[in-house]
Amino acid sequence: MLNEGVGSWTARRARMSPGRVAVVYGGREWTYGQLHERASRLAGALGGLGVRHGDRVAYLGPNHPAFLETLFATGQLGGVFVPLNWRLAAPELAYILSDSGTRVLVFDPEHASTVDGLPVSAAVPADESLFAGAPAVLDQPVHPDETCMILYTSGTTGRPKGVMLTHDNVTWNSFNLLLDVDLSGEEVTLVAAPMFHVAALNQTVLPTLLKGGRVVLVSRFDPQQALDLIARHRVTFLFGVPTMFLSMSRAAGWAQADLSSVRSAICGGAPVPRTVIEAYQRRGVTFMQGYGLTEAAPGVLFLRRDDSLRKAGSAGTAAFFTDVKLVDAERGPVAAGEPGEILASGPNVMAGYWRRPQDTEAAFADGWLRTGDIGVADDEGYIEIRDRTKDLIISGGENIYPAEVEDALYAHPAVAECGVIGVPDETWGEVGRAVVVLREGANATVEELLEFLAGRIAKYKIPKSVVFTDALPRTTSGKVIKKELRARFT
Amino acid sequence: MLNEGVGSWTARRARMSPGRVAVVYGGREWTYGQLHERASRLAGALGGLGVRHGDRVAYLGPNHPAFLETLFATGQLGGVFVPLNWRLAAPELAYILSDSGTRVLVFDPEHASTVDGLPVSAAVPADESLFAGAPAVLDQPVHPDETCMILYTSGTTGRPKGVMLTHDNVTWNSFNLLLDVDLSGEEVTLVAAPMFHVAALNQTVLPTLLKGGRVVLVSRFDPQQALDLIARHRVTFLFGVPTMFLSMSRAAGWAQADLSSVRSAICGGAPVPRTVIEAYQRRGVTFMQGYGLTEAAPGVLFLRRDDSLRKAGSAGTAAFFTDVKLVDAERGPVAAGEPGEILASGPNVMAGYWRRPQDTEAAFADGWLRTGDIGVADDEGYIEIRDRTKDLIISGGENIYPAEVEDALYAHPAVAECGVIGVPDETWGEVGRAVVVLREGANATVEELLEFLAGRIAKYKIPKSVVFTDALPRTTSGKVIKKELRARFT
Repeated sequence: MLNEGVGSWTARRARMSPGRVAVVYGGREWTYGQLHERASRLAGALGGLGVRHGDRVAYLGPNHPAFLETLFATGQLGGVFVPLNWRLAAPELAYILSDSGTRVLVFDPEHASTVDGLPVSAAVPADESLFAGAPAVLDQPVHPDETCMILYTSGTTGRPKGVMLTHDNVTWNSFNLLLDVDLSGEEVTLVAAPMFHVAALNQTVLPTLLKGGRVVLVSRFDPQQALDLIARHRVTFLFGVPTMFLSMSRAAGWAQADLSSVRSAICGGAPVPRTVIEAYQRRGVTFMQGYGLTEAAPGVLFLRRDDSLRKAGSAGTAAFFTDVKLVDAERGPVAAGEPGEILASGPNVMAGYWRRPQDTEAAFADGWLRTGDIGVADDEGYIEIRDRTKDLIISGGENIYPAEVEDALYAHPAVAECGVIGVPDETWGEVGRAVVVLREGANATVEELLEFLAGRIAKYKIPKSVVFTDALPRTTSGKVIKKELRARFT
Repeated sequence: MLNEGVGSWTARRARMSPGRVAVVYGGREWTYGQLHERASRLAGALGGLGVRHGDRVAYLGPNHPAFLETLFATGQLGGVFVPLNWRLAAPELAYILSDSGTRVLVFDPEHASTVDGLPVSAAVPADESLFAGAPAVLDQPVHPDETCMILYTSGTTGRPKGVMLTHDNVTWNSFNLLLDVDLSGEEVTLVAAPMFHVAALNQTVLPTLLKGGRVVLVSRFDPQQALDLIARHRVTFLFGVPTMFLSMSRAAGWAQADLSSVRSAICGGAPVPRTVIEAYQRRGVTFMQGYGLTEAAPGVLFLRRDDSLRKAGSAGTAAFFTDVKLVDAERGPVAAGEPGEILASGPNVMAGYWRRPQDTEAAFADGWLRTGDIGVADDEGYIEIRDRTKDLIISGGENIYPAEVEDALYAHPAVAECGVIGVPDETWGEVGRAVVVLREGANATVEELLEFLAGRIAKYKIPKSVVFTDALPRTTSGKVIKKELRARFT
């Protein structure tokens, strides 16, 4: 095989165990042989639409086998996969498609109305006609150092940047996961979190398929349905964000739910309250957590089986092939108990940001990825995440970058100053709150401002509350002091 | 960590689970923390003996924790590990040490008499004084493309060649194994085959340690002792050669032996008779086989769990990240059912032979490794090994290269012509037989010839029988026709 990338995985699995089930969705099953056949036919269709080696192919839609088929088909052609968050507003999608220079957009037919006018050469619905043609000839040499996927993430600047993950990045991240979690060839993995997120895709779906297990896809999370699927498919492994685990444990059917097949669960995003961990442990489910970021494909720290309760609240220690250090502002080492920025290095760390050499340069220090997050190590080396220097808000598993929301608010003529902060929320972990200073003489209600944001940014990014004030706390250089903002308005 | 090689593995495991047991030997246990501490101290001692980045360090002795400590210590310094077969005769050891330019030889104190006069700068017994000093400072950058180990293998020429395996070769071979066999972090692996062999080391010991399991080392195989150790240590995973599995199943204690902990067994070397597979399957042990060679680190083909009985006798299909094809003499493809030379390609395939660029060039065809072995694929793609073009004899798991034995025989003044072939043997699978034509007027008995070989080549390589004849069958170009020799003298 000339293809040494992730796009070759279905071919490798199909030659090994063509009859094993790879994907379960909506009561149907796809074997590895079928998944490979369909990915190859889709690759033929994409080739017919002009997709060549290195071209970007995007997918828009909730979890569905077509998402994975598009990923593997793109990889067969040596293309670059760009998964899209279907909850983004049209201008946000347009920005990403334009920035990535996407050639073909494959979309869930339900999202037909969204794709109108999006800047791509071709937009095709993922219906059966896409799989009706001849399979592509698998002759495209793909090197593991080439880009496999571009995942968009926002930052302090407010404009999403494309994180370029190579085939090697994705593969080594899978190896890290497979060394930390005992996934078997008989694994049945429930994928209730959206696959356009790096953790669900790279930390759960791809390692399961690499190992030859099966993934059970859920398009829209519902706690009771998730419990039903666990029992029906004898699910052994769960991935989710804190909100999901919390809502499942509060669902009416929780006490009666059959969780006997589940061996382990990984929770991504934010630390989970100890009571939730214990609720699952009591049902025989080992609860593991970690810390990562898109730029690291994403796994950096992991709290393993033996430590999940003993070290609850901590994000654990470094993944096997990944190295981590905490440094102070001068990049010197920090002692146990002292806060420091988390730096990471390893074969899972991104190649860089797509077409942003300056941002890429700024993201690294002496070859180490600067995560921008602050951690504190205990005397055994377990790291607790203390602060996000990026002021990130994590709400129900979605990352919200305040700068992006603030940019949108500033577009309103009545807004003089604004700052967006995260405030604790029992269901979502955190939700956004906008603190706004109106222009002298201008008027705007909370409802007006929120309505203004709708359609400009994704619904989940819109703050749940707005507070008006006279002035924002600022540094002498004029930067809003988020810490003080949080102290005053939380 | 600057060290991205196998030498960093103990450090990576020790930071993750320092208290877990890594090695069991002679009733003692070494945790990952202890293994790392000892390897680091040994690295300090080796550094004191002048070992620098790229230097070769050899180990001579039966299975013992010191073998692994030397491997990891060498890797910490960026050195190259050269494991030696302790059954080799002194001239054979001298050749390997000289060819590899080994700087330091670490040896089991039992082998003190063997090392006298061997061509190395320093030979040190693996006693406790080696571990008494300060640990090495782990500051040596090691790139995964550097050579991790040199393993010596003979070939048609009769002179052993050093196979250079990089850190990446060894690591990807481990990944192939971990994708094919469900090793867990709780694995307990019995290592009864000698670790200087590529299969025991790279296909069993290193994947177990990578996954965080424990290895139970046996220095000299005894079937009843192996059964006792399985029960005592609740062994879950076995690696051995056909002779070992056969002798265990024939041991007096077999019927009473507690095998309830064992989940799977891998048999290397040659195909196992179906009756042996069934004897283990009846005891709940899944029996897996494969095909490999030192040059592929070693895994190429693997017969997996589901196929072990259905396809008994076959060597299986390609490992996940490895590609395999069968070609005819003109390197064109061959159809199912037709014999062809097995070519392999993948991240586990060697960098080349140590200081033998011509042999390295000859070993590859268009980037594919020429195994020199003949296979036949069935219509499902499962490959059966039909013939070894190298005329290799596999006896009790040891490779015997006829050309090497013939070279030694030709040194006897009475030998005019000779050819060594393998003949079937119930216990050893195959044993060597020498077919000899004496010089006109010369005389030699079977005993004289066998005595002549002792001390020149390892005992296991000495033919078990000698047959005299008048002339050897030869091609018109003068080459001995081994096929005909086997037909006439088996």
